[in-house]
Amino acid sequence: MVLTFSLSLCSSIMVRTVAVIGAGPSGLTSIKSCLDEGLEPTCFESSDDIGGLWKFKEVSEPNRASIYRSLTINISKEMMCFSDFPIPADYPNYMHHSRILQYFRLYAEHFKLLQHIHFQTSVRSVRQRPDFSHSGQWEVVTENREGQEERHMFDSVIVCSGHYSYPHLPLKDFSGIESFEGKYFHSWDYKGPEDLRGKRVVVIGIGNSGGDIAVESSRVAEQVYLSTRRGAWVIRVMSDNGLPVDMKYNTRFVHILFQLLPVNWLSWFGEKKLNAMYDHTMYALKPKHRLFSTIPVINDELPNKILTGGVMVKPNVQQIRGSSVVFEDGSVVDKVDVIVFATGYNYDFPFLPPNVMHKSGHRLGLYKHVFPPTLEHPTMAVVGFIHALGAIMPQAEMQSRWVTRVFKGHKKLPSNRAMLKAVECDTKDMDKNYIVSKLVPLQVDFVSYMDDIAGEVGVRPSLAWLFFTDYPLFKRVLWGPVTAYQYRITGPGKWSGARRAIFTQFERMFQPFKTRQVTYLLYIHTEDRA
Amino acid sequence: MVLTFSLSLCSSIMVRTVAVIGAGPSGLTSIKSCLDEGLEPTCFESSDDIGGLWKFKEVSEPNRASIYRSLTINISKEMMCFSDFPIPADYPNYMHHSRILQYFRLYAEHFKLLQHIHFQTSVRSVRQRPDFSHSGQWEVVTENREGQEERHMFDSVIVCSGHYSYPHLPLKDFSGIESFEGKYFHSWDYKGPEDLRGKRVVVIGIGNSGGDIAVESSRVAEQVYLSTRRGAWVIRVMSDNGLPVDMKYNTRFVHILFQLLPVNWLSWFGEKKLNAMYDHTMYALKPKHRLFSTIPVINDELPNKILTGGVMVKPNVQQIRGSSVVFEDGSVVDKVDVIVFATGYNYDFPFLPPNVMHKSGHRLGLYKHVFPPTLEHPTMAVVGFIHALGAIMPQAEMQSRWVTRVFKGHKKLPSNRAMLKAVECDTKDMDKNYIVSKLVPLQVDFVSYMDDIAGEVGVRPSLAWLFFTDYPLFKRVLWGPVTAYQYRITGPGKWSGARRAIFTQFERMFQPFKTRQVTYLLYIHTEDRA
Repeated sequence: MVLTFSLSLCSSIMVRTVAVIGAGPSGLTSIKSCLDEGLEPTCFESSDDIGGLWKFKEVSEPNRASIYRSLTINISKEMMCFSDFPIPADYPNYMHHSRILQYFRLYAEHFKLLQHIHFQTSVRSVRQRPDFSHSGQWEVVTENREGQEERHMFDSVIVCSGHYSYPHLPLKDFSGIESFEGKYFHSWDYKGPEDLRGKRVVVIGIGNSGGDIAVESSRVAEQVYLSTRRGAWVIRVMSDNGLPVDMKYNTRFVHILFQLLPVNWLSWFGEKKLNAMYDHTMYALKPKHRLFSTIPVINDELPNKILTGGVMVKPNVQQIRGSSVVFEDGSVVDKVDVIVFATGYNYDFPFLPPNVMHKSGHRLGLYKHVFPPTLEHPTMAVVGFIHALGAIMPQAEMQSRWVTRVFKGHKKLPSNRAMLKAVECDTKDMDKNYIVSKLVPLQVDFVSYMDDIAGEVGVRPSLAWLFFTDYPLFKRVLWGPVTAYQYRITGPGKWSGARRAIFTQFERMFQPFKTRQVTYLLYIHTEDRA
Repeated sequence: MVLTFSLSLCSSIMVRTVAVIGAGPSGLTSIKSCLDEGLEPTCFESSDDIGGLWKFKEVSEPNRASIYRSLTINISKEMMCFSDFPIPADYPNYMHHSRILQYFRLYAEHFKLLQHIHFQTSVRSVRQRPDFSHSGQWEVVTENREGQEERHMFDSVIVCSGHYSYPHLPLKDFSGIESFEGKYFHSWDYKGPEDLRGKRVVVIGIGNSGGDIAVESSRVAEQVYLSTRRGAWVIRVMSDNGLPVDMKYNTRFVHILFQLLPVNWLSWFGEKKLNAMYDHTMYALKPKHRLFSTIPVINDELPNKILTGGVMVKPNVQQIRGSSVVFEDGSVVDKVDVIVFATGYNYDFPFLPPNVMHKSGHRLGLYKHVFPPTLEHPTMAVVGFIHALGAIMPQAEMQSRWVTRVFKGHKKLPSNRAMLKAVECDTKDMDKNYIVSKLVPLQVDFVSYMDDIAGEVGVRPSLAWLFFTDYPLFKRVLWGPVTAYQYRITGPGKWSGARRAIFTQFERMFQPFKTRQVTYLLYIHTEDRA
């Protein structure tokens, strides 16, 4: 009864001001969504620039995400861009971090977002105001670079602080590490292979970072050993005919197949296709889990480095003895100079009040990965705290569109009880469908999740409706990649350029290749596809 | 009549001493062949170590081949090793140059070759002795590191000085290069990408070096442009299921198919398969020539670098203007910091007398790429001066086995007239089958050539004979890769380990992968294949 009452209260609340915490991709698109809905965003960014994770720094800074110098995104440009702002046609399909930051600058300039950002301003605490049950308002304490604290009052808060800021360094699982005679560090500290020249390196963990670091350091190291507890399925960004893998397979049609066919059969089919490229058993990569039980590792060069001997795949580390690393199969690697722990990240929101940090299984329980389910008023949301085989940008954008619709009162959330139930349900589903651990507590299917939130916003494209009203568009939405433009065809936030963006998405994909004229086939291709 | 007379003279000559010029792979195996035939080899090596090309030096030295720090061979270990000395099982399939040198050291030690090598001794001239028409002997003038010359008399000479020592830098074809504001150098001078960090780089030429340098420098450069006059078919060393491409396709069965089927059809089939990996038209690589008209470029990473934008393929350079490079399609790249000429090598044998340098078309005319066809006595041979889609090591070894058999008088060469005719014939064949230029004048089919020379030596495996006498071996010789062990099964130089080496070649291929135990399939694989 109390919960129902609070829900009815909620509808009477007027939200105008929004604190956006963080100016990474999630923060930027949240500011934009606020502006689109006529809200007044104020973004607090602790660093001196936009981009979050994607702003490269020569030295990692505490409590802030960090990337390495060579990082290139593993989602293609058409699949990673915001829904109403395609990436320039001449940009490469898989962009270096510097290009991604350029894109964010273009986005921020185009939608005039910068004026809403307070740089070098950290958020110290976010607390419900004493009259929260009436007002739904929050008190946000910030600290500027001079260390001066400031108190602000906001009608609502969007948390976009990311989940790659707190390295997970499980030293206690590595007996003998305290007496290791070499150097060790977390992948968070890795910037490039320069210091690893001629060294013997053990990389622990075969996630995307572990794979990248192993490959890159193997170019200069004497030998790199890549230790994995479970093994991994390793996919390539370059798919059949050289197409970006997500442009080829992240389609609505494939998504429908995934709803219809048994996942074991799909895994079998996918594994067969992967093994045809490089037999995961032969390459000592094969995990016990099935292909679609977890988000696969993306690495185009790792198999080649295994073939050429630069990287040797090893099992889990059992212990460390002096400068030797002992693996669980009893094999020993001596004279190890460096151990790199590519062991992932913990999430934390140190500035949030404990009552919004509802735990559900391994994860922070948020309703549809966005709303704390226990608040009296839905005036707080977490955006970009999600993990799928797809880019964070369109997902965060979709979340922020929903959040601002809820803040404005255009959309209602269910009762707290219903939300709590839904959270538990999601947690169970994830446990069933994925290998879930403390470190990867969040795994969703990209299209299902996008469609789900789009349904909340009222922008989910209807295939049936398109079939009868716009057959050429229908074809592209069904068979083509699920680019975010699809969520701007109709409903709130409809963008008049969406249809054209969908019709030209393959043109933009082909554009960066057109650096040398090859007669015969190139243009046929383009017209055929776009 | 004179020619026939000289031929009959030749048979009366006794060869005992052999000068071997160069201690690279060709020189090493030539020394070994001499020893096998009871000849007395003396090898002159201008540097202080064995390995030739494969001995990495931090700074390139004039008139000597040069490699870059990261160079990995593109022929798999079972296909590159000498026929009676398999590469250790745990070595990776595609070896870094440092490993290759290790292998050569093992080879040289095992067969006690080092004691026959005079290091830091350059050959200044090789001349027919005045009594050559009677003796067939040569005068060899060497120079040691103190600059002291020494004269030697030899019954015969094997030239193993290689063909990557003289960079081809066609500056006159690049109008404006004299006023180029950046830096330029030949790929021969390239050691690593360190100096290219943040630079704008144009690499000219899409051979194996050009591709490697473009890929490697793109990891640190601001942008790399790879200029190609003709385009190229680019193949990968990693083939279906992750097998080394040569272990999979360089089989006797495929070779037989190539004799039976039209080459255009084979090209069509191969191109289709390559385009299924990455469409050469889309990737702006597509050449006008067919796949099997020339030896393809081998590069596993180039397509990925094109996809991620690090390397842009450009057409031929038209001119250079200040710091700008103008291409033939009219496009201009500004602010170029560095131009790398990956424009290949000229061959030269400055120490040889002019009368052995018979020109045939673009190439040095040698009978079966080994013997100068104009000499009165066959007491000089060139070993390792060949270019095929296969490693130089087994080819040079086969040549040296033939050469030493000829020197010993066990085998006869045809008359000079017949050899000259054969040379012209080969030149015409190459012109017909390949795109031949001044820079790539030598292109032969690996198996055809090996079989041809093996026929001269008397060690060519007979499929019919194997079919009836050793069916398990027959199967492996027909369906398996044409590893050099096949030429040690029978005939002069027969090696008792050859059969076993063939039966275990896939075991040695699988061995380096076995660094993490994966249950289920690994051992089935091994037994099935080996």
